[in-house]
Amino acid sequence: MAHGGGGQLTAELIAGVILPAVGGQDPAALTDAAALPAGEGTILFTTDSYVVQPLEFPGGDIGKLAVCGTINDLAVAGACPVALSLALVLEEGLEIALLRRVLASAGRAARGAGAAIVTGDTKVVERRGEPGMTVNTAGVGHALPGADLSFTRVAAGDAVVLSGPLGQHGLAVMSRREGLGIAADLLSDCAPIHELTAALVSQLGADVKWMRDPTRGGLAATLAELAAGAGRNVEVRQDAIPADPTALAAAEMLGLDLLTVANEGKLVAVVAPGAAGRAVEVLRGFDIAAGAAAIGTVGDAADLPLVEMLTRAGGRRIVQMPYGEELPRIC
Amino acid sequence: MAHGGGGQLTAELIAGVILPAVGGQDPAALTDAAALPAGEGTILFTTDSYVVQPLEFPGGDIGKLAVCGTINDLAVAGACPVALSLALVLEEGLEIALLRRVLASAGRAARGAGAAIVTGDTKVVERRGEPGMTVNTAGVGHALPGADLSFTRVAAGDAVVLSGPLGQHGLAVMSRREGLGIAADLLSDCAPIHELTAALVSQLGADVKWMRDPTRGGLAATLAELAAGAGRNVEVRQDAIPADPTALAAAEMLGLDLLTVANEGKLVAVVAPGAAGRAVEVLRGFDIAAGAAAIGTVGDAADLPLVEMLTRAGGRRIVQMPYGEELPRIC
Repeated sequence: MAHGGGGQLTAELIAGVILPAVGGQDPAALTDAAALPAGEGTILFTTDSYVVQPLEFPGGDIGKLAVCGTINDLAVAGACPVALSLALVLEEGLEIALLRRVLASAGRAARGAGAAIVTGDTKVVERRGEPGMTVNTAGVGHALPGADLSFTRVAAGDAVVLSGPLGQHGLAVMSRREGLGIAADLLSDCAPIHELTAALVSQLGADVKWMRDPTRGGLAATLAELAAGAGRNVEVRQDAIPADPTALAAAEMLGLDLLTVANEGKLVAVVAPGAAGRAVEVLRGFDIAAGAAAIGTVGDAADLPLVEMLTRAGGRRIVQMPYGEELPRIC
Repeated sequence: MAHGGGGQLTAELIAGVILPAVGGQDPAALTDAAALPAGEGTILFTTDSYVVQPLEFPGGDIGKLAVCGTINDLAVAGACPVALSLALVLEEGLEIALLRRVLASAGRAARGAGAAIVTGDTKVVERRGEPGMTVNTAGVGHALPGADLSFTRVAAGDAVVLSGPLGQHGLAVMSRREGLGIAADLLSDCAPIHELTAALVSQLGADVKWMRDPTRGGLAATLAELAAGAGRNVEVRQDAIPADPTALAAAEMLGLDLLTVANEGKLVAVVAPGAAGRAVEVLRGFDIAAGAAAIGTVGDAADLPLVEMLTRAGGRRIVQMPYGEELPRIC
């Protein structure tokens, strides 16, 4: 608790553990706010708090997740990530070694994406059970030239493209949490997707109309958001949705619908009719999107827009926005 | 917990409780990141997480505190606050009525300061005892024309100016927490100080050399930071430091040193020799800085710079960076 008092111990924690791990600047140069060049045009600004448990999971940890999550929110808004903040709420008794690992992972993820962690904050609170932590990242980015993304541009006949198989993040976390043997080789897909979005925008220009990352609530929540925001029905084909056999089996065991499970390195894009092939080709040029596919089509305007899935069996199923909690503390 | 699942209940919480309270935009227009005009010159970017307990205290609450705290970090960095993010980590069982009050308070504070809350996030976690919440605010601002603030500009003979009496925030929170009768009429000083900093910069220009808000760790931590950052001794006069009699009495009862108690609406500024009088005059033009005073002087460069206080009794006392926890969860 004393490390959160704002005194010498806090300064030592920041200078000795946090800054070296995230690759930050000289503590003597720290100010209350970081200066960034304004650039030209539009600034994009976003935030997310991360409460995932456990803090480390197959394929990632809360540090990498927090950095990638905020980079991805900027990316799908059509921005190039520039700078991140990192605010920690640590629970008393958290191992310093664990903190170092998580922060080093956050720093690597940020450097890998060319987005500097430029400002931060550290608080300490009482533990609840096993000492944990929550991480908030906010991010600032510059709008990509040529990006013109909005629900209002989505039209009938547009194609819905997905960058790869579903559910790996949520199932990796759950299987670690539940000690599920079958999913031992299942890794979270946690990854920055800003190169995917930048490539789509630079190659397809205004043919890219809307993008989202299907995190909490999964593809189901993202498609429901698309339908509601655009005021149009959306139809997807089950046999076109990329699937990972291990994830499918794990979802089956846990009684979960893969459509509602969180992803942390996937992209959903709506592109103009006829641009789906090019979009899939561009995406497949990236390892993390090797499984990209066109999965559906935007339909007519509707007062109560629906998402429908054509099932493998030839039926139609309505895909609903998940109601409440399927997987607590998944991100 | 179900309100944190990212599904329909999360959407309802955001659309029905959070956006109306903070005065946010149409939920249908929400995107993963908010767009801001880049403006010209330099962008300032900052973040803070707030874990104060209790969530409501005399003179403020965690919502107002989070908004003011981030506005103030931008303000002392020489920026005009433009946009804020608001990320909530709610504990299960938190009363919706309390959440509404805190968010309405955050919204009022932001609107009052002309800084829009433009992006946010909501998570739900298990409670620890009484259901609480933590709030992260990040902020983006534009650099004020003429602001040139840096440790390197601080020189021997510069004056240290403080905007008013110390300790009101920390003592108001502690007295509420401890049920301390004597301090019942003690209010937190929680307030935005961006008008103070903007007025100083516009009136005094480059004569303003460095600014900070003495929050966690109090004036002692801020002066220690100044001495270490500038590499110079700092001397303050006890009889010049504005004092509030109720705060003094409460600090006495709690065995606390007012110099180390948190403030949330105060400013410490270093100004050029000869500019102290004007700085105090400018500050006293604002209600929240009616008690402004010049409290000390920057001294010679030193390898191990010290902060010394000339005591009322005529002695000299070294003011140290507080070591660890004096007041947990004070902000």
